[in-house]
Amino acid sequence: MTLVELPALVDTDAAALLSATTDRSGWPGAAPPRGVVRARDVGDVRDVLAWANATGTSVIARGGGSGLAGAAAGVDGAVVLDLSGLDRILAIDPDEQLARVEPGVITADLDAAAAAHGLMYAPDPGSVSISTIGGNIATNAGGLRGAKYGVTRDHVLALDVVLADGTQVHVGRDTIKGVTGYDLVGLFTGSEGTLGVIVGATVRLLPRPARTATLSAYFSDIETAAHAVSAITRSGARPAVLEIVDGQTLGAIDAVEGTDLRVRGEAFLLVQTDGFGAEEELAVIAAALAPFAALVETATDAAASDRLLFARRRALPALEAIGRPLIEDVAVPRSRLAEAVRRIRAIAEEENVRIFVFGHAGDGNLHPIIVTESEPAGAPIPAAAQRAADRIFALALELGGTITAEHGVGRLKREWAARELGADVHALQTRIRDLFDPRGILNPGSSL
Amino acid sequence: MTLVELPALVDTDAAALLSATTDRSGWPGAAPPRGVVRARDVGDVRDVLAWANATGTSVIARGGGSGLAGAAAGVDGAVVLDLSGLDRILAIDPDEQLARVEPGVITADLDAAAAAHGLMYAPDPGSVSISTIGGNIATNAGGLRGAKYGVTRDHVLALDVVLADGTQVHVGRDTIKGVTGYDLVGLFTGSEGTLGVIVGATVRLLPRPARTATLSAYFSDIETAAHAVSAITRSGARPAVLEIVDGQTLGAIDAVEGTDLRVRGEAFLLVQTDGFGAEEELAVIAAALAPFAALVETATDAAASDRLLFARRRALPALEAIGRPLIEDVAVPRSRLAEAVRRIRAIAEEENVRIFVFGHAGDGNLHPIIVTESEPAGAPIPAAAQRAADRIFALALELGGTITAEHGVGRLKREWAARELGADVHALQTRIRDLFDPRGILNPGSSL
Ligand SMILES: Cc1cc2nc3c(=O)[nH]c(=O)nc-3n(C[C@H](O)[C@H](O)[C@H](O)COP(=O)(O)OP(=O)(O)OC[C@H]3O[C@@H](n4cnc5c(N)ncnc54)[C@H](O)[C@@H]3O)c2cc1C
Ligand SMILES: Cc1cc2nc3c(=O)[nH]c(=O)nc-3n(C[C@H](O)[C@H](O)[C@H](O)COP(=O)(O)OP(=O)(O)OC[C@H]3O[C@@H](n4cnc5c(N)ncnc54)[C@H](O)[C@@H]3O)c2cc1C
Repeated sequence: MTLVELPALVDTDAAALLSATTDRSGWPGAAPPRGVVRARDVGDVRDVLAWANATGTSVIARGGGSGLAGAAAGVDGAVVLDLSGLDRILAIDPDEQLARVEPGVITADLDAAAAAHGLMYAPDPGSVSISTIGGNIATNAGGLRGAKYGVTRDHVLALDVVLADGTQVHVGRDTIKGVTGYDLVGLFTGSEGTLGVIVGATVRLLPRPARTATLSAYFSDIETAAHAVSAITRSGARPAVLEIVDGQTLGAIDAVEGTDLRVRGEAFLLVQTDGFGAEEELAVIAAALAPFAALVETATDAAASDRLLFARRRALPALEAIGRPLIEDVAVPRSRLAEAVRRIRAIAEEENVRIFVFGHAGDGNLHPIIVTESEPAGAPIPAAAQRAADRIFALALELGGTITAEHGVGRLKREWAARELGADVHALQTRIRDLFDPRGILNPGSSL
Repeated sequence: MTLVELPALVDTDAAALLSATTDRSGWPGAAPPRGVVRARDVGDVRDVLAWANATGTSVIARGGGSGLAGAAAGVDGAVVLDLSGLDRILAIDPDEQLARVEPGVITADLDAAAAAHGLMYAPDPGSVSISTIGGNIATNAGGLRGAKYGVTRDHVLALDVVLADGTQVHVGRDTIKGVTGYDLVGLFTGSEGTLGVIVGATVRLLPRPARTATLSAYFSDIETAAHAVSAITRSGARPAVLEIVDGQTLGAIDAVEGTDLRVRGEAFLLVQTDGFGAEEELAVIAAALAPFAALVETATDAAASDRLLFARRRALPALEAIGRPLIEDVAVPRSRLAEAVRRIRAIAEEENVRIFVFGHAGDGNLHPIIVTESEPAGAPIPAAAQRAADRIFALALELGGTITAEHGVGRLKREWAARELGADVHALQTRIRDLFDPRGILNPGSSL
């Protein structure tokens, strides 16, 4: 079979190729791919991979295209395999508290379907309304509720995967626990489309929390907010959400939205607790951060907590409105948050670039956003921005952290991933990749 | 270097060899191993593996020897590598909520050290006082708190591993999140000593719950108890502990302990909630199970909840006192619990063997215990018991479950593991094993 034998599937329209050339990182924009295949069913996926493996054609799986690492970006000569059309929720089982889905289901749609049964799909990346479950699994996406509920990996029980040669396997199981064989579900989760294409998943659902309670707090500076995070960690409470936003980002939101957030402080924390003890747990947290905070507001109803969430929700859109953001994604040990932020500021000054910082403080996960002028899409990353990014990666490693907590390595962080892993582990990982994809057709040039 | 060059390390004393011939499964008792090496430090582990790889000698890592799958059982020609001496807790970090440990640390010792800082190490297999963290990781052990806190995998951040050829690698990271490279921590977790020897681990600690609340309930029969489990699942509550014990097991405890548990009912559920809303959450559960229960007792202080835990804690020891237990470990979808128990009963009758059932109901994890007469240790599994076990495995797979939820495959369940995985996935897993251990020296004849 040749690509010509699949004409109905292959879209070589210029607009289709262009939109597949990048993801939401906006970078990097190599030559457009050879074609886009919109899979209509799992058989299409098997056919495309069998053909690609036989012909040595690169295949780049693509879900919502919301990735921030350039991992789903189509490159010259590759076929982009778009899974977004496989978007059926096949089952929601409230007795087992699990769902079976196709890979193209939008994250928020799954959570909404679960909500109809009093359940939730816990992982909630900021991109819930545009990312797919398949993409979430392929990147092991985190999210706001991660402080308590962990990452996508913690919620995937079984996967259907089409391997590089077009054969399909089922890994994992539909029970909560099970230890037969190695953890292949874990291996595929976070593999960024390099070990196989995910065509189905069984995921866990959890009871929707009986109640939630929300608090926002402003601080005189971000170091003080970071100390408050440590105090919360030591308080014995387990917040579901613990987010941080710096003063510069608050200023950008004010500029774009016409709000007056920054007058309240130079740093913002958002805390949410949930479950039967939500209010009591929030009170423990409020007491822990009181010595540090300049202003605290709490909410127990949905409308009021939505107001408190505003500053966190509008952070990235505001930065996208004022320039072209290069979105980083480091994690550091939680007790090094203050030091990390202070040194990122110094990097911004020394490199003369604008760096805004927000992130999932509860996980030690910071998103330093380097905002450059709005060059035309496809322009390369400006030298000063790239230097600042490299110094942020080096800082994360120096502080005992990682260069990517949740967005993935993709095409933007490959060299740094190799440095983080070290030669021995990198070699071991490469051998695993070769085992799954001997001809190297799956997303070459990305990840490892 | 030859084994002869490590004389101080190698113990070939008959008693040492005999005790290394089996684990707590009691089975199977092949010829004793060639020697036992008690590692004094990580260098010893590297030396032994480098030597073994060069000479093609089998190495069986061993922690507490509390395994129930014969996975740490020494076999003819192999060297048993005992890690129990590497038992230092290197750090407990309350700011990061993590611990760094050597592999031989006893599970309960780590939890106790964490408790001194108001923290807990959540995974709590029934064997906490005799199993090691290294063994827990190698088997991906579950435990009583698993209903809420998951399994060992969910609590391991980074590992130091000596590979088959004696080289040492560090995988994972010391931050809560991180997606650089494939999930090798997950791959080693549950690999039963077949991919490398764990010589160090960074594990997560969580705040010790502010409060716990405990309830025990008795039911007229085990099907009714299983229906109560479904009602709890649907109630919106998330119990930390949800255990089931059948009437026959209650009877065995009564016989051994002189108690009168079985007069209260033919099935027992133990439920524990924790956290700030513990009492309210327990009340929701009590309301959900009330329509099914014959008798309910609740406790909020430690002494009273210990009394309620008694029946669950004494289950296995009682069965060990009355005969020789063959301990199974299936999981089924939670809604199939009642059917599973009913059919296990039928198997017991048809094969004319005694089968007692208890387990982690919240995870759908049942431990059917086939108790045979007390043959001398080392005697093979009686034919009827093996037939019953095989039928239980087949039943678990038929119901959409697994042949081992937490104890592992080891030497006792290899054929069934291959059946559960299917030829394609089994072949894929075998290739991963070969990649890590090309000479096949790590625990050959066990697991896959
Ligand atoms: C506003 C915004 C907020 C965000 N917030 C978060 C956040 O809080 N946490 C977070 O982790 N990320 C976040 N992201 C990043 C992004 O949304 C996630 O990485 C998401 O998981 C990508 O899903 P997707 O379906 O868009 O995947 P894509 O971008 O299409 O692809 C991402 C990667 O997954 C692979 N892939 C996609 N589908 C499959 C499949 N079926 N099989 C195999 N491989 C596949 C691709 O090859 C690529 O390597 C955010 C992005 C935006 C734009
Ligand atoms: C009374 C009782 C109750 C139990 N309850 C539970 C329970 O609730 N949940 C549960 O999951 N299990 C339970 N078990 C089973 C057992 O305790 C677990 O499997 C435990 O994790 C084994 O730990 P260990 O240190 O004793 O390992 P061992 O028995 O010594 O070894 C088990 C396996 O791990 C490998 N291994 C050990 N250490 C290392 C290392 N450092 N590196 C690489 N491989 C290694 C061995 O090669 C072997 O394959 C119970 C056992 C008993 C006797």
